[in-house]
Amino acid sequence: MTTPPRLVMKFGGTSVADMERIRNAAARVKREVEAGYHVAVIVSAMAGETNRLVGYVREAAATPGANSPGFYDAREYDSVVASGEQVTSGLMAIVLQEMGVPARSWAGWQAPVMTTAAHGSARITGIDTTKIVERFGQGMHAVIAGFQGVSPEGRITTLGRGGSDTSAVAFAAALGAERCDIYTDVDGVYTTDPRIERKARKLSRISFEEMLELASLGAKVLQTRSVELAMNHNVKLMVRSSFSDDPGTLVCPEEEIVEKNVVSGIAAERGQAKVTLLKVADRPGVAASIFGPLAEGGVNVDMIVQNISEDGFTDMTFSCAEDDVARAKHLLENAEPKIGYREIVVDDDVAKVSVVGVGMRSHSGVAQTMFSALAVDGVNIKVITTSEIKVSVLISRKYLELAVQSLHAAFGLDKV
Amino acid sequence: MTTPPRLVMKFGGTSVADMERIRNAAARVKREVEAGYHVAVIVSAMAGETNRLVGYVREAAATPGANSPGFYDAREYDSVVASGEQVTSGLMAIVLQEMGVPARSWAGWQAPVMTTAAHGSARITGIDTTKIVERFGQGMHAVIAGFQGVSPEGRITTLGRGGSDTSAVAFAAALGAERCDIYTDVDGVYTTDPRIERKARKLSRISFEEMLELASLGAKVLQTRSVELAMNHNVKLMVRSSFSDDPGTLVCPEEEIVEKNVVSGIAAERGQAKVTLLKVADRPGVAASIFGPLAEGGVNVDMIVQNISEDGFTDMTFSCAEDDVARAKHLLENAEPKIGYREIVVDDDVAKVSVVGVGMRSHSGVAQTMFSALAVDGVNIKVITTSEIKVSVLISRKYLELAVQSLHAAFGLDKV
Repeated sequence: MTTPPRLVMKFGGTSVADMERIRNAAARVKREVEAGYHVAVIVSAMAGETNRLVGYVREAAATPGANSPGFYDAREYDSVVASGEQVTSGLMAIVLQEMGVPARSWAGWQAPVMTTAAHGSARITGIDTTKIVERFGQGMHAVIAGFQGVSPEGRITTLGRGGSDTSAVAFAAALGAERCDIYTDVDGVYTTDPRIERKARKLSRISFEEMLELASLGAKVLQTRSVELAMNHNVKLMVRSSFSDDPGTLVCPEEEIVEKNVVSGIAAERGQAKVTLLKVADRPGVAASIFGPLAEGGVNVDMIVQNISEDGFTDMTFSCAEDDVARAKHLLENAEPKIGYREIVVDDDVAKVSVVGVGMRSHSGVAQTMFSALAVDGVNIKVITTSEIKVSVLISRKYLELAVQSLHAAFGLDKV
Repeated sequence: MTTPPRLVMKFGGTSVADMERIRNAAARVKREVEAGYHVAVIVSAMAGETNRLVGYVREAAATPGANSPGFYDAREYDSVVASGEQVTSGLMAIVLQEMGVPARSWAGWQAPVMTTAAHGSARITGIDTTKIVERFGQGMHAVIAGFQGVSPEGRITTLGRGGSDTSAVAFAAALGAERCDIYTDVDGVYTTDPRIERKARKLSRISFEEMLELASLGAKVLQTRSVELAMNHNVKLMVRSSFSDDPGTLVCPEEEIVEKNVVSGIAAERGQAKVTLLKVADRPGVAASIFGPLAEGGVNVDMIVQNISEDGFTDMTFSCAEDDVARAKHLLENAEPKIGYREIVVDDDVAKVSVVGVGMRSHSGVAQTMFSALAVDGVNIKVITTSEIKVSVLISRKYLELAVQSLHAAFGLDKV
């Protein structure tokens, strides 16, 4: 007897937002079960749940008279927030059972999904699939709470926002799944956000590298780490809609894409902030003294720019999520004696726009085309960074739509 | 160095219903910490949360086209519903930290609280306090998710409605706590429900035995099993309000109560039903053939009365919760071939009123006083049962308030 092939199906928050949608998702699972797969379903929290729970945590952390208002124990945050996926997994298991599909739920600590102790953004260090595979053998499919795991000391961890994608890919790798289907509220990966540019087109395929840039640039279709993981373990990732039977977008190795565009997509990210430390002593080790505490404090620093030194002093600018600004300021203020600077200046009216494409490797002039298009529309660029396959700029938030539309046209993405 | 005394503080759903109330509860915890206690806080789900989660499960179980609509896997139910307490415990830990009280949350499986595998109404088989005590030694107080534990096969269990009281008492016993304070939305145990009789008085002390009768009679202040457990382990139980600093009611051994009343309290329970099987063959084993299936079917039978036999037939009457009537009828109809009876008659317009007091052991005439008081007011008694320290009657529901008020006066409970 051959072992049936395995399939991982991941349903995001909007795909399990209410009971009707959970049933719709379950019906898709049932179809794959009937097609002969052993299925591991990874579920997110019902849409809105995570925000509700995070809201509670913030409220708790805003207790008046606290020593450090706004800060909270990330271990407690994880325990509170992870409950959302726990609820969906139980409900999905019940609905599957009702539909005649044998299934049981697994919390992160039950599988277990082992992670680092970096609460709030833990990394998966290993998945023990023994018990789940044993149940597969008994005809029992698995419904796994995404986004979560357990730390070495036995505490609930979460993988960070969108971490359910990472859970899904990690399970697909650990189970040797034939494919990892990511069901979401969009039917694939687009050349840009269709809410910003109506002429955006769905891509039938996109390379891991491009997806990685788009994911980390805020395209929000897939979490960055899930794409990394899929690339490293060569997991075939399919992004598709829970609400239609359209084919979706396959994320795959570059070699499997025949027709390559110079630029594949434009990513836009609204909630950014630019933080500048004025008059930092320009000496060796100063960058480490700034970004060390930020990294330890869990602030995800994106771009870093250091201005020309003058009189032994320099200005150091970085960007991060707007939500991290308060924490970043606090950490930098604490580290001030070690760093030494005159002032922290925050510009939190900032958006990031990026163009991405593996074709940039062989085509020059992409940055120039980008800057020209923005200049024509009078969009001032605040910070620029580039990588092998992308160019990103920070601009005023009010120009975000305009910039995306200009660039989408400038790179011919609105043409089939 | 002597080990500080330990205290268990349990906060019910209304005491942690929102962030302001969680802060209020945390302030009480802080006060006890400052008084020198190592505190284990047991929390319920925020008021309304458990109902919301149970609603989801019911909805999931009502998936159209299911083989057995309405039924669901109790293991999944437990996993879903237990998330409510997990959330509160994390939030409470954060608020305590904000207030400068070192604290961490513990889910049932983390402590762990070991239970039977009777999902939905599991019993605690043991609590391993090693890790919590180790943290006490580091000055770290514990916030424990009530109502839950973990089964031998590692799945989340719940202890049944009101189970957080049981969690609290079990932890108080396991930790050798000086006292177990149950914070709730009433400020103690009353001679009767103050909503029914405004002259109801708060008792400063009540014996375990009396509390047990009152709890099982629907006084709703404490869960029955928690009182049993407290009695067996001699845990001092204090029922008090989260919203005032009034002293509350101490539940303690009978010997510690100096001034005993003949009757301590009047309990009233509205949602009762009386079920009579007419013309049952009066033969050995017939009671077992009736109550066996009911017990197996999960119907909680309260009073049982068998009438005098006539012509080899008898009528068998029992009472149960109104909510259980449909199930009871279904079970009895299925068992009809084995039992043999002419008809099932249901009277679901029934309430139960009981007088409770350890003084009954040494004073006669309590039942007589009760029956006379009810007779004077024209209240017809449908069924009577007695135990060593209580007399209960079933009456028409419309007489409930009248009966309680009459009895409260008749036993002098309105006088200080």
